[in-house]
Amino acid sequence: MLASEVFERKFTINSSGHLEIGGCDVVELAQDFGTPLYVLDEAKVRANCRTYREALKGVYPNYEVVYAGKAFLTQAMCGLVYQEGLGLDVVSGGELYTALQAGFPAERINFHGNNKSRAELLMALKNGVGRIMVDGLMELETLIQLARETKTQPQVVLRLKPGIVVHTHSYTQTGQEDSKFGLGIKDGVAMKAVKIALASPQIKLLGFHAHIGSQILDVAPFMAAVDVLTAFMAEVRTQTGFVAQKLALGGGFGIAHNKREKPLALWETVAQIGRYARERLTALHYPLPRLVLEPGRSIVGPAGTTLYTVGNIKRIPGVRTYLAVDGGMTDNPRVALYQAVYEGVLANKMNEPLTEVVTVTGKCCESGDTLIWDLPLAAPEPGDLLAVFDTGAYNYSMASNYNRLPRPAVVLVADGEAELIVRRETYEQLIQNDLMPERLKVKPETEPIAK
Amino acid sequence: MLASEVFERKFTINSSGHLEIGGCDVVELAQDFGTPLYVLDEAKVRANCRTYREALKGVYPNYEVVYAGKAFLTQAMCGLVYQEGLGLDVVSGGELYTALQAGFPAERINFHGNNKSRAELLMALKNGVGRIMVDGLMELETLIQLARETKTQPQVVLRLKPGIVVHTHSYTQTGQEDSKFGLGIKDGVAMKAVKIALASPQIKLLGFHAHIGSQILDVAPFMAAVDVLTAFMAEVRTQTGFVAQKLALGGGFGIAHNKREKPLALWETVAQIGRYARERLTALHYPLPRLVLEPGRSIVGPAGTTLYTVGNIKRIPGVRTYLAVDGGMTDNPRVALYQAVYEGVLANKMNEPLTEVVTVTGKCCESGDTLIWDLPLAAPEPGDLLAVFDTGAYNYSMASNYNRLPRPAVVLVADGEAELIVRRETYEQLIQNDLMPERLKVKPETEPIAK
Repeated sequence: MLASEVFERKFTINSSGHLEIGGCDVVELAQDFGTPLYVLDEAKVRANCRTYREALKGVYPNYEVVYAGKAFLTQAMCGLVYQEGLGLDVVSGGELYTALQAGFPAERINFHGNNKSRAELLMALKNGVGRIMVDGLMELETLIQLARETKTQPQVVLRLKPGIVVHTHSYTQTGQEDSKFGLGIKDGVAMKAVKIALASPQIKLLGFHAHIGSQILDVAPFMAAVDVLTAFMAEVRTQTGFVAQKLALGGGFGIAHNKREKPLALWETVAQIGRYARERLTALHYPLPRLVLEPGRSIVGPAGTTLYTVGNIKRIPGVRTYLAVDGGMTDNPRVALYQAVYEGVLANKMNEPLTEVVTVTGKCCESGDTLIWDLPLAAPEPGDLLAVFDTGAYNYSMASNYNRLPRPAVVLVADGEAELIVRRETYEQLIQNDLMPERLKVKPETEPIAK
Repeated sequence: MLASEVFERKFTINSSGHLEIGGCDVVELAQDFGTPLYVLDEAKVRANCRTYREALKGVYPNYEVVYAGKAFLTQAMCGLVYQEGLGLDVVSGGELYTALQAGFPAERINFHGNNKSRAELLMALKNGVGRIMVDGLMELETLIQLARETKTQPQVVLRLKPGIVVHTHSYTQTGQEDSKFGLGIKDGVAMKAVKIALASPQIKLLGFHAHIGSQILDVAPFMAAVDVLTAFMAEVRTQTGFVAQKLALGGGFGIAHNKREKPLALWETVAQIGRYARERLTALHYPLPRLVLEPGRSIVGPAGTTLYTVGNIKRIPGVRTYLAVDGGMTDNPRVALYQAVYEGVLANKMNEPLTEVVTVTGKCCESGDTLIWDLPLAAPEPGDLLAVFDTGAYNYSMASNYNRLPRPAVVLVADGEAELIVRRETYEQLIQNDLMPERLKVKPETEPIAK
């Protein structure tokens, strides 16, 4: 059995029997850039962006696709999504700083988050961020006050809590009543917020947003969100006369990390949502607001692959074979956090039969540092190159320096060319913020460190 | 009810009704250094170091306490444990670099890890690291080869797999047969390694090490480890004549993060282990090797407190009150990773009665970003200062930049003085490794960013 038969994936394999991504031999990428290495397939990122835009194009007249930067945000990624005509969701001052530094137009940025600080809100107002996605009554009051102080008039979208429970990992349910996010519809908080916003000349209410969860592999919850939001919009119109210009349905479109997860047919799902929103709004005689989708994972997740060098292999007879790689929970915390199931192959042995089942572990001093359980591989040896798929989202962005491991580099590949878009961290950077009080110094002079 | 009654903790409260740590008013610390802020109580770190040394002093003639740096390692921490006479365990090139940069004597460093790279092993050999804790047969062979190449003769301790299952979180079990760590005793791998090591003039075998798990709140597994290791040592002596100079029993001594966890009586436990090891070895007529304990969490965990500023509070009638702080799973991933239960108080309202039960959430755009469920607090308001206890270990060391949140500063407090030992990360540092390919640039010139 070959990897393609077991994992039901299509691989591009070159004449050396090596995996190719974006026309690049990944064995060469590993030699040139070192491992662990995040490889991002530019064509896939662009294709995923276009899927959203094209799926909406035919079914809804006035739409916008906004990339949720928390999945993976670097300056180069900002450039990519900008070129594809997407807007950008940021969730912190740091993400906003990254986007602005990349020259991303502030007007096309939405600022999300359940607990934006005053400093972050001020940063957004001063830089002319397009829309503040207001998450609660307290934030609404703070924003009105800051708008007054800064003599700005921010555009505001209210985040609603649609009261939908999505049957996925409990950590990725965000639309239910018992959530830190959003303004409750059922308890009247959302309507209260609308009335405060409409009564405040300091801000301009544009519309409504909801995000029902993450890694959703079913269209039904999105339809339910459309039902709840459009019904609320109609009720708002009845009570206040306000007609929304924006209807933002969030993201949460799931991807298949392994063959057990049934992939969402993205184009069809997006088109279905667009059609349904149009139908519902038309039935309510509601002027069509701009429909906004805010995908993150589904844009960048499948476009990412992590390359690791195989190190020590331990074959424990009758128990298990542990194959250790040079990264782990530091560069991919999703396995330990969410019990995520990834797939991988030996990228230098793509045409060889799978002969051994191993458990892939990382190099952290922690038993939870496992990347993949029971992975069939082609006769693994130290020095082999392991490629783990679908690591584009929530890997680099969640990476840590646990065990003081430097975070990997990120390389963008397209048409056989590879460009570094994030340099590998250095040991010097790991301690760049350390301060050593004089009284704790071990020796006055430190000898040079051999590396 | 006051916090001290509910949590059964002793607090130092000053005349302003504020929490004091190391003689410092934490409200002033927050004002001076900002939040989130890690506060490290120097006296507690030193006292914990001394507990180990003093508990062993009376019961075992030749002992050594080695701090497991992965719990929390900065240059200042290296200085602290050095001054307290401890050795240092490192698990990566990055930790080794930190220690050497701090001037920590290489001879007193042990290098652990299940998958040390050749580069890391070379770095250790070139800098004269005291002991390489060899984790497997492959590593043993690599090390022998590298010692030959570098004309060094490293001292080696073999990590054994004692086959003990500790009943704690499955992620923190490390001593069982089915583990990525160590050389199996039962399957004969450990004995094979001993014979290879003894036959290799390139390395000097010193003895044996085992680490049975983490956050252990019971002395029994440590006793079991002593049994297994001493029996193995006796068997090695019988088969080869080799007498170990080191017996390293690892760490894993648990701490109580909350009143439901029964704290380990540290002094008594350590003394009991020392006494028992001596008894067992004496019964085997084994010359007493140097006994090594390698604590991490129990040294630094209880010495750390994280300070957060309270932001938005959402009271959802009949459901829950969410209180959001300005940090979260980025600075303390242990709640999401291990369902760890922490306790906290409003540090500016220490003498006020607890009137409301809240769920403390972070500011990450993620539902799993909860810090404490159902925490009783004194009438919380935005701007209050929340102190979360026992965050000294595996918080800063596991912190990430998820949502591009900068990592907090660390301040060392003692005798009413506060010294910054880790500066807060800056937005500039978050993107310092970003590279922007010319063809992805949005605009040739970027305007200055207002912060």
